Parts: sequence; C-alpha cells; structure tokens
Amino acid sequence: MTTQQLHEQIQHKKSFLCVGLDVDLNKIPQHLLETEDPIFEFNKAIIDATHDLCVSYKPNTAFYEAYGIKGWQALEKTINYINENYPDIFTIADAKRGDIGNTSSMYAKAFFEDLAFDSVTVAPYMGKDSVEPFLAFENKHTILLALTSNEGAFDFQTKTVDGKELYKSVLETSTKWKNAENLMYVVGATKAEYLTGIREIVPNAFLLVPGVGAQGGSLEEVCTYGMNNQVGLLINSSRGIIYASNGIDFADAARLEALKLQKAMEIILDKN
Amino acid sequence: MTTQQLHEQIQHKKSFLCVGLDVDLNKIPQHLLETEDPIFEFNKAIIDATHDLCVSYKPNTAFYEAYGIKGWQALEKTINYINENYPDIFTIADAKRGDIGNTSSMYAKAFFEDLAFDSVTVAPYMGKDSVEPFLAFENKHTILLALTSNEGAFDFQTKTVDGKELYKSVLETSTKWKNAENLMYVVGATKAEYLTGIREIVPNAFLLVPGVGAQGGSLEEVCTYGMNNQVGLLINSSRGIIYASNGIDFADAARLEALKLQKAMEIILDKN
Repeated sequence: MTTQQLHEQIQHKKSFLCVGLDVDLNKIPQHLLETEDPIFEFNKAIIDATHDLCVSYKPNTAFYEAYGIKGWQALEKTINYINENYPDIFTIADAKRGDIGNTSSMYAKAFFEDLAFDSVTVAPYMGKDSVEPFLAFENKHTILLALTSNEGAFDFQTKTVDGKELYKSVLETSTKWKNAENLMYVVGATKAEYLTGIREIVPNAFLLVPGVGAQGGSLEEVCTYGMNNQVGLLINSSRGIIYASNGIDFADAARLEALKLQKAMEIILDKN
Repeated sequence: MTTQQLHEQIQHKKSFLCVGLDVDLNKIPQHLLETEDPIFEFNKAIIDATHDLCVSYKPNTAFYEAYGIKGWQALEKTINYINENYPDIFTIADAKRGDIGNTSSMYAKAFFEDLAFDSVTVAPYMGKDSVEPFLAFENKHTILLALTSNEGAFDFQTKTVDGKELYKSVLETSTKWKNAENLMYVVGATKAEYLTGIREIVPNAFLLVPGVGAQGGSLEEVCTYGMNNQVGLLINSSRGIIYASNGIDFADAARLEALKLQKAMEIILDKN
C-alpha cells in the first residue's frame, strides 16, 4: 500500500485509528476458549465489528509467539483474513525487529512476503544496515522506534547525544538512509509536547502513536502538535477497544469504543 | 542453567565456542531439501557433529520466521532436540526482542517457557521496563545488545551520551536493573579494542561475541582484552562452521571447523 492510498482511506473513513490486536487468552471472553482457534476467532469478531471505523490493524507479534506454533498460525490466519476481506486496511506487524543486514533481510521477507503485512516496526539501535533491508521493499513501510511511550524511554531515548536527544538523532540520521521515504516512526502519545520538535525533523512522515487510552495520552493534544497536511498520524488503541467487554457482547463493546475514537477523529479532521 | 554450570562446561570441554544455527535453505546441501524438514535435519546433523566441541548453540530466530509456520516448527524441534540429547548445552534464542513491559513478558514466556531456551538476546533502546520482565526468570539469561559487530553500530551505539559512548551508558545503566545478575552482553568481535573499557564496567558478566570468522574478528585479541577469571566469553561462529561445505560431507566439514576453533580456545585456556 502507498501512503497516498492510506491517506485516501483516512479521508474516506474519517478516521486515523489503528486497532492493536494484542490477544491475551487470559483476557478474552471465556466462551471463545471452547473454539478450535480462540485467538483467531477473537480477532475475526473484533475486525468484523470495527473495520469501517479504523484504517489499520496492528497485531503485536509477542502475543502470538507466546503461544508457539498455534500462535503463529493464528497470526497467519488473522493477516490473511484482513487481506482477503478488507484489502484497504493498512496492516502493521508490531514486531520491533532489527539485526545485522542479512538477518534483517530474513525478517523483512518473513513479514512483507510470507505474511504480507504492509509494514513492520523496527528498533534503531543497530543502525543503518539493520534497517535498510526493510526499506528496500517497494510499497512496504518500516516504522522505526523513535520515542516510545514507556517509562524506560527516559533511560536512553531522551539522553543527549552530540547536543540533541537520542530519539532526534535517530530521526535525523534515518532520513538519510536509502529509501527513507518508506519510513514511518513510533512516537508515544504520552509525550505530546515532544511532537513539535519531531515534526520539525520529519514533517511529512506518518507517525504511529501508541498510548492513547490505556497508556494515558490525549487525542486532541497529539493532533494539535503532530498532524500534518496529509494527516500523518495513526493513533493506536489496543486494550481500550478489544477488552471493552469480556462477555458475549465483546465485539459490540469494541465497536462502541472504536466509534467513540472515530467520532472524535472526525471532528478533528473536519476542523482541519 | 546457572553461569556456574556454564563455566564448568567450558572447563570440561576446553571450549567457549557458540555455534550459530542460522539456517538458509539456499545454502544448505541440496540433498537435504528432499527431506520432510530440511532445516531440522540440517541442524540435527550439525549438532550431532559438534556438540562436544562447543558449549552453546544460537539459532537466530529471523532465519526460522522467514519460513513461517514450518520455520517455527523447525526451531521448536531444534531446541527440543538439544535439550533432550545434550542438556548441558547453553541455548541462546538470538531474537533481539524488546517491547513495553507486559509485551516483553509475553516474549520472555515464549522463549524461556514455551521453547525452553536458557537465554534470549534483547535490544536496549526501550530501557529498563522493556528488559526487566526477561530478567525476572530464575536461571535464565538476558543477553543485552551493547556494541554490535555491524557497520551501523557507529550510527548510534558509539555516539557520546552525557560524556560517554551510548553502549557504555547501556552497560552502566543496565547493571542497576532488578536481577541484573542475569544479564550478559553482546559485544562485536570486530571491535576488540573496546573490550578493555567494557570489562571495567562489567567485569563479571559473560560476553557473547559474534563476528569471529565471517565478520573478521581475531580470537586471540578478543581473549586478551575480554576474558575474565571465569572465562566470561562465548565466541560465536555461524557461517564459518555450518557452511564449511555444502556437499554430503557438510557435518564432517562443520566438525573440522569447530575443532579448529576449539583447539585454539584450548591453547588460550591452558595459558590462563
């Protein structure tokens, strides 16, 4: 998918919502545990109930790997289900991968070809030759961790490197990499005040913003400082939507929560 | 496995060799492609041929994920084969994971419980609460990326942060985390001259050193600057051993290459 197609979908749905599919068997409705593939059945119901309100789904691969082969099968079925039934959706493998060149090529192949995701999240610590193998895929996107929403972000990301914060150094340096136009960035919503500085460095890139909802970020604040003239934002909510209810009505409850965020986004988009 | 048990194994085998199981179907002997599970058959032959010469095996998960479900099945069979037949071997899932707290817990569960690896490699970019969930597992080890052996290491890792290089800041900061005694570190062998400084910060930790062989590091130099009184080193070689031949004799050829490194290590251990 191109960023232009993503932008068109945002305009059409009046939404820049990404739903995080972080499926924990301890949190999903009990009646699903009797099905053959509870993770996939849960995702399928959530996707069918929310696909017109969001532009993106983001399974975090950790939640699938934790269940071994069965988990990977559920991940494969989930991405295939989205691609077959809702091909306009922008899919994100939240995998936070990154390794030396030939190894990163294997990860890129795994997520872009084998599983056919539109994008994958990648950690920047190993630098240019660990990220460029992902960037080499046409119309696929690499979402680089810049400033994350957790407490540990202050351990290294906000430390000063050569006169600027490490996350700014990551942003600046990455813009010089080959096929940098395929880059997007993870920026935690709990730090909305940082967005002005980030937009100075990457005015045109899409930002994936986790942390609205369970992690406490404010939607309005993020949009005020982070939106560009192509919208340029994907706002993720995981637990607030998918675990809105753990009863038989879980999909309807998820839709209601997604609808609240979509409506708030529609108001913001109409203003701009 | 405890580090004491790892140390005893090193003394017993007179080796601190780690064999990297980075299986690429384009590089393994053609005759294996006719078997039902070529990746596992390759690993099994390599392991049977080298287990008495090395103390550790390190599958890089990227090479397994690239083959989807079949790849994960091969990884599962490989770790089970090692644990059942050679339980003294220290196993490393070279996964370079790292995510926010609850997600890192899922990864830790995947690698320490589901797959029963002794250790996993983890990226430090997201800080303390992304690593501590791994450290919470007793007698399991978290191998934190400090200074990697690739060119991109110079993009961020060697940049100066608050008066010292980022990788030194990672080392120092991590020693203050909860259960820090379960930490080991990845240090690229192509930068042996850095090892003196690293040993000042983490005198007792085991260092996993990739880059001897294909990536060009020198064994003697690494030992001179990196060895401590518990040896404290695991030297990895992947391609140089496992792809020594791609003929029918591949396992014998791998054994010969492993033997060369083991003999060189025995000489070094006898001197110390």
